[in-house]
Amino acid sequence: MGCPVGIGPEVIVRFLAARAKGEYPPVILGDMGMLQRCARELGLKIQFYSWHPGQEIGPEGIAVLAVSNLPAEQLTRGRPSPETARVMAQYVEKAVQLLLAGDLAAMVTCPITKQGLQEAGYRFPGHTEMLAALSGATDYAMMMAGRKLCVTLVTIHQALAAVPKAVTSQAVLRMIEITGRALREDFGLRKPRLAVAGLNPHAGEGGLFGKEEQQAILPAVQEARAGGWQVSGPLPPDTVFHKAAAGHYDAVVAMYHDQGLIPFKLLHFEDGVNVTLGLPFVRTSVDHGTAYDIAGQGVASPASLAAAYELAARIAGNRQRHQRASGRS
Amino acid sequence: MGCPVGIGPEVIVRFLAARAKGEYPPVILGDMGMLQRCARELGLKIQFYSWHPGQEIGPEGIAVLAVSNLPAEQLTRGRPSPETARVMAQYVEKAVQLLLAGDLAAMVTCPITKQGLQEAGYRFPGHTEMLAALSGATDYAMMMAGRKLCVTLVTIHQALAAVPKAVTSQAVLRMIEITGRALREDFGLRKPRLAVAGLNPHAGEGGLFGKEEQQAILPAVQEARAGGWQVSGPLPPDTVFHKAAAGHYDAVVAMYHDQGLIPFKLLHFEDGVNVTLGLPFVRTSVDHGTAYDIAGQGVASPASLAAAYELAARIAGNRQRHQRASGRS
Repeated sequence: MGCPVGIGPEVIVRFLAARAKGEYPPVILGDMGMLQRCARELGLKIQFYSWHPGQEIGPEGIAVLAVSNLPAEQLTRGRPSPETARVMAQYVEKAVQLLLAGDLAAMVTCPITKQGLQEAGYRFPGHTEMLAALSGATDYAMMMAGRKLCVTLVTIHQALAAVPKAVTSQAVLRMIEITGRALREDFGLRKPRLAVAGLNPHAGEGGLFGKEEQQAILPAVQEARAGGWQVSGPLPPDTVFHKAAAGHYDAVVAMYHDQGLIPFKLLHFEDGVNVTLGLPFVRTSVDHGTAYDIAGQGVASPASLAAAYELAARIAGNRQRHQRASGRS
Repeated sequence: MGCPVGIGPEVIVRFLAARAKGEYPPVILGDMGMLQRCARELGLKIQFYSWHPGQEIGPEGIAVLAVSNLPAEQLTRGRPSPETARVMAQYVEKAVQLLLAGDLAAMVTCPITKQGLQEAGYRFPGHTEMLAALSGATDYAMMMAGRKLCVTLVTIHQALAAVPKAVTSQAVLRMIEITGRALREDFGLRKPRLAVAGLNPHAGEGGLFGKEEQQAILPAVQEARAGGWQVSGPLPPDTVFHKAAAGHYDAVVAMYHDQGLIPFKLLHFEDGVNVTLGLPFVRTSVDHGTAYDIAGQGVASPASLAAAYELAARIAGNRQRHQRASGRS
């Protein structure tokens, strides 16, 4: 459910009201009172019922694992308290526990407050690092996924001046492989087509505008090809995303934050999804924050949550098929 | 006309065949034989006639200033010769001469071969530098213009590693002012709304991911505001282009090549236009190259030329109005 006083609860309710029944029915880990308040305020009739792990999920109503029991009517939107921060972290802990036990097939997260997480005593910069720590994952990465464009990033939260040195062959190769495995196992693509962006204008124009393409990126691409991956690159950054969106590639490995996020947000501002690759369970996330400034107004769009849910279900199905096919289950 | 054996002549012919008559009729500076050959090959009936400076442009047929008289039927597409390179440069020289004399209102350029230009003895990296030299302009810049997004660049053809140091307050302020003047005088916007992108992820997140925003970009924005410009920034690069395309800003000043060109090409791959700001005459250009690989096949799209022509006419009209309004003409 994410932060109880952010837009999480209301986008969940709006999503549920519009959702057609599917193969993977939802369980909300959150607060029954807050969900009911949101439904009432939005004039939406949703029947929530209290669910416990192991219990079958029926065809009627929405299953809620009531991790918290907040004084929902007294909460003020946009005003997180030590209590809302604490329960927000507990939703995540409980979800990981049930995912690792096999009680749930996938996790879709609504936004949390990073500051609240810290103040509640959880020393993680965000959701993803917390999930990795709780599940013992060490080699994980984020993919931004949309119907037109999927992007992974070799470097993320660094100053642009630090990026060229951080773009090493090793880092590029690792991201090509993580991205390729995700497309194969999670997205169900037998022979994924990967594009690797250059770092410099025109991908360096033969060394005229920088040598990182020749020294770091191309060797990684060649090694990945030798490993059986179908990889193109390093390609000129100003056209590779257009080509990927036109259907020539299944994903683009970008070298830095804005190189990947500028085109992704241009194409998928409303319906973008974050996928965490490399966890022992399926996890997708909405591509927006708690939006405290508009929480409770009923104007927040459930489009990103709907896309995140749909993708989580698709990945869960693909992983099951892939595991059966490789005889691992 | 650009390079006679590139896609220039054929996109001109396709553009002319589809063009509705407007306030600014065209004159083609190029080769009569090559234009006629293209029209014939494409099955398009266009009546060209030989035009000379000073002569009125009639309502019927297309005026051609026949700068060259090539053996058009013998030329092979995609194979520039010393002769095609030489006349290609002469089209540009002749156009500048007539623009400076006031015989023509604006210039729209089709692609040239940069290598050919060099080999023909013109020591310019490209069209724009040649135009600046021929017209004595020193403070010029390029704007990428489209209906959804207009972008200018503080740095252009440099390695990414060299960008942070090149993003100085002076360079940012200069580009804000050039962009603002262009929007006001050329695009006819009384109070243009400018956005300035940050350099780093999240525009530096308060110095956490780089200090260029605080040290170079913000001071330039503040100085521009003091000078009367309506400027927002430095803004997070991954959302500013989305906002501009949604109509919140009239142009974005980007810090480096791919920051501006990734979103521009994503939105305007087919119909993007380059505008040269700071010349003593109006000049727009198609946003593509000579495309020797497809020249002569009749598949090249005239969309960029059509957009470049339309914008040149609009700028010519706005400059005339602006000059009348400021009492300068």
